[in-house]
Amino acid sequence: MRVLGIDPGMAIMGYGVVEDRENSVKMLDYGAATTPSTMETPQRLLHIFNSTERLIEEFSPDAIAYEELFFNKNAKTALIIGHARGVSVLAGARKGIDLFEYTPLQVKQAVVGYGRADKQQVQHMVKLLLSLREIPKPDDAADALAVAICHINSARYGRKIETRYH
Amino acid sequence: MRVLGIDPGMAIMGYGVVEDRENSVKMLDYGAATTPSTMETPQRLLHIFNSTERLIEEFSPDAIAYEELFFNKNAKTALIIGHARGVSVLAGARKGIDLFEYTPLQVKQAVVGYGRADKQQVQHMVKLLLSLREIPKPDDAADALAVAICHINSARYGRKIETRYH
Repeated sequence: MRVLGIDPGMAIMGYGVVEDRENSVKMLDYGAATTPSTMETPQRLLHIFNSTERLIEEFSPDAIAYEELFFNKNAKTALIIGHARGVSVLAGARKGIDLFEYTPLQVKQAVVGYGRADKQQVQHMVKLLLSLREIPKPDDAADALAVAICHINSARYGRKIETRYH
Repeated sequence: MRVLGIDPGMAIMGYGVVEDRENSVKMLDYGAATTPSTMETPQRLLHIFNSTERLIEEFSPDAIAYEELFFNKNAKTALIIGHARGVSVLAGARKGIDLFEYTPLQVKQAVVGYGRADKQQVQHMVKLLLSLREIPKPDDAADALAVAICHINSARYGRKIETRYH
C-alpha cells in the first residue's frame, strides 16, 4: 500500500509519500509546496490544488492521509487553513482516492507509541522508521510523513473505517 | 457585464447571476446547491466545486463576487466554511475569472444604501432592483444576488481593485 500524507496550509503544504513493505515502511518522496503571502488567494489555492493533483498523478497513492487541525486557532486562521485543506481534499476526491484524517494524538500514538510525545520525538521516529539519514525538513514535510506512517499502521490494525475523512 | 454572486457554505451554496443593463440590473438565474450532512466531506466539496464550475460554463460570467465571512463564528465552523469557500474560489481561479469579495457592510451599502440595514431590507431591495415578483428563496440565493448587485455597483463607481479576492 502506498500512502500520500499531507499537512495542508496556505503558505506551506507539506507532503510525504511512503509505502509499506514486509516489515518496514519505505519513504518514496517528501517535500513542501509553498506560496508567498504576496500572491492572491485564488492563485495560491490553484497552486495547492495543482500540487496535490501532480503528487497523485506521479505516485498513484492508494490513500491520502491528512492530519486533523488543532482548534486552538482563531476563526480567521481556521478559515484560511480551511480554504487550503479544502482544495487539497478536492484534488483527492476528484481522483477517487480514499481519504483519511488523524488527530495529532493518533499520529503520535502510531509513530512514537504514546500520545504526549513532543515534536522532536515524532521527527526522530519518522527518521528511524523510514531509515533516513536526517530529519526531514521542513517540519511540514516531517508532519506529512508522520501522518502517512500513521495511516499505514492504522490500516495494518484494521482501523480504517473510523478515520475516514468525514 | 455579467456577474455570478456566490454565498458559499458546506450544506448550502447560494448563487445568483445578474447582468447590468443601461439603467438597470437584470436577473438571469438564482438558486442553491445543497448537500446533506450525511454525505462525506470530500463528496460535498466535489459537489460544490462541480456546481460552481457548471454555473461558470453556463453563464460565462465576467466576474464572481463572494461575501466575506463574519468572524463571530467559532474556529471549527470557520474551518468547515473555509473548505467550501476554497473549492468554490478554486473553480473560478481555474477558469481564469476575476474574483472579488465584499464585506456585509459593503453589500448593504451597495444594495440598500446604508450599512445597518437588516436582512429583510436587503431582500426587499434585491426584489425591487431586479424587478422580481417575489423575494428570492432560499435566503442564501438572495444573499448571493445581493453580493452580485454590489459588485456591479462597485464596478460602476470604479472600486474594483480594493475588493479583489485577497
